[in-house]
Amino acid sequence: MRAVTVVEGGRLEIAYRDEPVPAPDEVLVRTHGAGINRADILQRAGRYPAPPGVPADIPGLEFAGVVEGVGAEVDGVRHGDTVFGVVGGGAQAEYLTTKAAHCAHVPPALDLVAMGGVPEAFVTAHDALVTLAHLAPREWVLIHAVGSGVGTAALQLAKALAARVVGTARTDDKLERCRGLGLDSAIMPPLRDDGSLDVDALAWQVLEETDGGADVTLELVGGSYVEADVTAAARLGRIVLIGTLAGVHAGLQVHIAMAKRLSIVGTVLRTRDAAEKAAATRAFEADVVPLLEREVVVPIVDSIIPLEDASKAYDLVASDTTFGKVILDCR
Amino acid sequence: MRAVTVVEGGRLEIAYRDEPVPAPDEVLVRTHGAGINRADILQRAGRYPAPPGVPADIPGLEFAGVVEGVGAEVDGVRHGDTVFGVVGGGAQAEYLTTKAAHCAHVPPALDLVAMGGVPEAFVTAHDALVTLAHLAPREWVLIHAVGSGVGTAALQLAKALAARVVGTARTDDKLERCRGLGLDSAIMPPLRDDGSLDVDALAWQVLEETDGGADVTLELVGGSYVEADVTAAARLGRIVLIGTLAGVHAGLQVHIAMAKRLSIVGTVLRTRDAAEKAAATRAFEADVVPLLEREVVVPIVDSIIPLEDASKAYDLVASDTTFGKVILDCR
Repeated sequence: MRAVTVVEGGRLEIAYRDEPVPAPDEVLVRTHGAGINRADILQRAGRYPAPPGVPADIPGLEFAGVVEGVGAEVDGVRHGDTVFGVVGGGAQAEYLTTKAAHCAHVPPALDLVAMGGVPEAFVTAHDALVTLAHLAPREWVLIHAVGSGVGTAALQLAKALAARVVGTARTDDKLERCRGLGLDSAIMPPLRDDGSLDVDALAWQVLEETDGGADVTLELVGGSYVEADVTAAARLGRIVLIGTLAGVHAGLQVHIAMAKRLSIVGTVLRTRDAAEKAAATRAFEADVVPLLEREVVVPIVDSIIPLEDASKAYDLVASDTTFGKVILDCR
Repeated sequence: MRAVTVVEGGRLEIAYRDEPVPAPDEVLVRTHGAGINRADILQRAGRYPAPPGVPADIPGLEFAGVVEGVGAEVDGVRHGDTVFGVVGGGAQAEYLTTKAAHCAHVPPALDLVAMGGVPEAFVTAHDALVTLAHLAPREWVLIHAVGSGVGTAALQLAKALAARVVGTARTDDKLERCRGLGLDSAIMPPLRDDGSLDVDALAWQVLEETDGGADVTLELVGGSYVEADVTAAARLGRIVLIGTLAGVHAGLQVHIAMAKRLSIVGTVLRTRDAAEKAAATRAFEADVVPLLEREVVVPIVDSIIPLEDASKAYDLVASDTTFGKVILDCR
């Protein structure tokens, strides 16, 4: 089979590999679509090695495809089923194996290539909003980088859950597109003269727009944005730390976190154990897949690019100019 | 009645005031004991004003005493009952009024003056360990300032819950006394040449003692200790922010919080609404009072000082040389 592989120096090549063989609790999937994520870019640069148990040099954290082989112990997934899910690596290839418990069924009407860009963003967003932050109707959600893959997924899910959303993005174009997805309040992050984030100005804008603070914050940017989150949070606010694009170090105002009784929760999908991944997959299948089927939420696709042009596709993601997902067509 | 009052310039005086009159959902309590807390010291200095609805100039956040008056709507608390609880202020006086729902019953065998120093520390510690951090048996708890009022309460509760405790304190004497209360591992916080905390050295000591990190941390010190907490936490660790003696600003390593999927939760009792305070009181009555009755946990009393010597008692608390609580005898 053809597979995207990371070779020395961080270059990508298309290599020919043997098809993987499913373990007793696994399925073999003929991949149709596989989204590219920022973690793949880090992995290409050698900064985010694959965890044990997945191909070390084939990237790809999400897929949609057709089941072509089924392990002896598998229950609930059959030959010919259309499935999608999150994997620890190895999705950017014509075939992959994964635990059946980590697969959700794709409804027949949905496009299987586009669905390859759904799981990582929507599982992450649903897990953060619902499982970690217990989002309630009419609460305010603050989403930084709202035009990103996880951002647009979270925006749509929050609106489907009857919440209100304030989002930040660094271009008018992204904010305008997010308004089309239901964004209630759009903020261009205010900058100081030296180009750095004006933390207090951002926090005050959020406090004003939300009339008292964000109940839930999805922190996809990191760095000094976290300080703004704490100042901009409502009493009993929940801040979920998901991304660190702007940096891994933040200041924490302990007295404000105490006075507002905030919860600041760090999360990452990739390192969770198999049972936790299965639970997140079931929550996604129960709560998100029906919304996809009814088109209450939709995948936001920037580009679909053939597997053999993976290198170009990666550069596009790294350019930070995309709106929504870049997906490899692995057929 | 006699009452401790804060007068201009942050001095304390004993004033004569009318006895308060209970509202329909309140009881009138003849105070026997009232503990002094660090918040009282801040309030005396004008840095922590009393919330609405409590006497603005009579400090005191906890009490034990005898019910001498009962509002018309009160159910479950009767004239002559011995009760203790947390209040928003006004406890350091011969009489106080408080909601009946914020009172827990004191078992007959226990000393009512000493019990006046129990509620704030034990409610805070129980709420943090059980309600916020969901402590499980055999987990490791890291308690900074383990010799403090909340520290010794948390240490005893954690041991009663079959957890293991590593604690820090700045004198050998405090650590030695805490060993007598069941402390499994005692750490003197390592300092740099300039006298500041050596954050990494502290974190590594905790990681070594706990063989992989603290599952629950009670952060009673704040400042740079919070950075050590994040580095020293186990996977899925929970850090509860309770105090800021060492400062309100901390650094937060967002990537570590994400990779370990930490929860960092800020908490304060005083600003909670009435229903939340009632819930915390019920949890304290159900889980902690039976342990007090069986002497599985005991109040750690540094000194009992007559009400009229309040000024001396406050200075003692401020001196930071005490082990356990300083309690005013209000009889």
